Amino acid sequence: MPRTISMETDMEDRILLAHGSGGKLSHELITEVFVPLFDNEFLGKLDDSAVLELEGRLAFTTDSYVVSPIFFPGGDIGKLAVCGTVNDLAMSGAVPKYLSISLIIEEGLPISDLRLIMTSIKKAAEEAGVQVVTGDTKVVDKGSADQLFINTTGVGMIAQGVDISGSNARPGDKVILSGSIGDHGIAVISQREGLRFSSPVESDCAPLNRLVAEMLGSGVEIRCLRDPTRGGLASTLNELAVSSHVGIEITEDSIPVRESVQAACELLGFDPLYVANEGKLVAVVSADGVEKLLDTMRRGHYSAESAIIGDVVAEHPGRVVMKTGMGASRIVDMLVGEQLPRIC
Amino acid sequence: MPRTISMETDMEDRILLAHGSGGKLSHELITEVFVPLFDNEFLGKLDDSAVLELEGRLAFTTDSYVVSPIFFPGGDIGKLAVCGTVNDLAMSGAVPKYLSISLIIEEGLPISDLRLIMTSIKKAAEEAGVQVVTGDTKVVDKGSADQLFINTTGVGMIAQGVDISGSNARPGDKVILSGSIGDHGIAVISQREGLRFSSPVESDCAPLNRLVAEMLGSGVEIRCLRDPTRGGLASTLNELAVSSHVGIEITEDSIPVRESVQAACELLGFDPLYVANEGKLVAVVSADGVEKLLDTMRRGHYSAESAIIGDVVAEHPGRVVMKTGMGASRIVDMLVGEQLPRIC
Repeated sequence: MPRTISMETDMEDRILLAHGSGGKLSHELITEVFVPLFDNEFLGKLDDSAVLELEGRLAFTTDSYVVSPIFFPGGDIGKLAVCGTVNDLAMSGAVPKYLSISLIIEEGLPISDLRLIMTSIKKAAEEAGVQVVTGDTKVVDKGSADQLFINTTGVGMIAQGVDISGSNARPGDKVILSGSIGDHGIAVISQREGLRFSSPVESDCAPLNRLVAEMLGSGVEIRCLRDPTRGGLASTLNELAVSSHVGIEITEDSIPVRESVQAACELLGFDPLYVANEGKLVAVVSADGVEKLLDTMRRGHYSAESAIIGDVVAEHPGRVVMKTGMGASRIVDMLVGEQLPRIC
Repeated sequence: MPRTISMETDMEDRILLAHGSGGKLSHELITEVFVPLFDNEFLGKLDDSAVLELEGRLAFTTDSYVVSPIFFPGGDIGKLAVCGTVNDLAMSGAVPKYLSISLIIEEGLPISDLRLIMTSIKKAAEEAGVQVVTGDTKVVDKGSADQLFINTTGVGMIAQGVDISGSNARPGDKVILSGSIGDHGIAVISQREGLRFSSPVESDCAPLNRLVAEMLGSGVEIRCLRDPTRGGLASTLNELAVSSHVGIEITEDSIPVRESVQAACELLGFDPLYVANEGKLVAVVSADGVEKLLDTMRRGHYSAESAIIGDVVAEHPGRVVMKTGMGASRIVDMLVGEQLPRIC
């Protein structure tokens, strides 16, 4: 009965509800798929918690990833889940150390897809120098989730003397952006909608912790670091202006936007200022030594196009104002409504 | 136009995709709903990570909760998400300290439901003595998730000298269970399926960290602690037997099962040994002083029915054997397949 056999094979190759039961199939998935990939002294014990030796100031951050589709040009939900959380730690000035990975899987997901994504997680974790030390897997019935959601929560260590916070910006500081904006959002939406552009856009998804380490090592005083993900550059700058009770003035012409991203935005009616990035950072830094810092940043693999995009001012606290290419000024508000759902 | 007005009111009362956009509505949800509930120095800063001062051995654990329905007798997904992760930390011998909360919300969830659940989270966190210090909210389009999924990740501190692990059981040790089994699973499935029993079953969902602190303070040597959640008591005992390379022998008559749970299990064709618990623990302890430990446990609010249910033996390593009420012995295997999906 070849039909029965092929059905069985098919079943074996897909995630079943029982893979999330806490029973035998859960155990097999953990010991056969997860543990061999993330082999370390912590995860291998399979206790309820990982036990870590740490001392000092700890950064702790969480994010759930629901990006659709789960594979996109330049990455997948696994790479994104590692980079996003590593970057949140780095933006606090922390050295990322350990991650937890928690999966919510829709019944029927091909196990081959899960393997690809877990392999991306492993690669991204290796690049960032973090260890996956604990995890969880839940499976929900078909139709109760969309393929796969991943939560990553991270802990990192903050060195003595490092004080990075969204509330530290002061008038006179410079605003630096580490590269072009909008790549991630446009890459995901293009894949989702099946759009084709003459030069395809890849997500910028990347771990930025080594860049941050270089920046912190430069000796230039860094006040705020933030990655402009959901809500884009505009929302991030607004958050900084509100938290620090300062105004921010940016110059449109100084903000790098790839031609292909600009073209896609015009076609789709998006403003690149509001499109998500996953491998860029905004830094607010003391004006002293800003050129030295830029030199350091431009040597980095993910930050060759770093540029000063604006200034922190005492006027209009809580507001971001942009000088346009035509010489006019306009208020750049926080994203209102939803420009691109499920982008991360 | 009263119809327009009522539609608007309805929209305002429900979660929209834009609540997960990273823009204005996200900001409002965070500052108006979440921060006032969980007011603490860490969360209030709204930076990318919470910064914590910690020193020593840290326990780190994660779980995603996908229970259906999200409200059930004795609790809801919020209470469950706090208790589950607090308990995983406690089972490592840690004092739970900080939690992250990450929400995946299906568009359209009534904001009143979200408030109820966040209030449950607050109450459970207060009872457990933990602080919610960081969080994340994603919203997915209708049909891409089922109402609400919650990830909680926790960190706790392990005191010097405490060494609790699933691999520490030794022949001669005693196996203690802190109370009746099956309550959580039966409460959830009854609610889901609309079943009514003469005496309704409530979930046992509870934080066990204070119980564990009392146990660790008793001076009796505790080798393993584990909460028998998904997969039930049977799967937990199997995990311990495998991790410690020992056999475990339990006596059926010594395992407390409520009459109402027993009746529901018979009706539904479930074995209570495989039904999930959310407020019970299994302890493997040195035989010396076990009665003293039981006395301590029985004084606890959630562990009045604590009982010795079996022994650790050198024979049949990796296997759990149960002496039935009729005097026969049967192998109790790990859960095979899925008995009750989406129970936690």
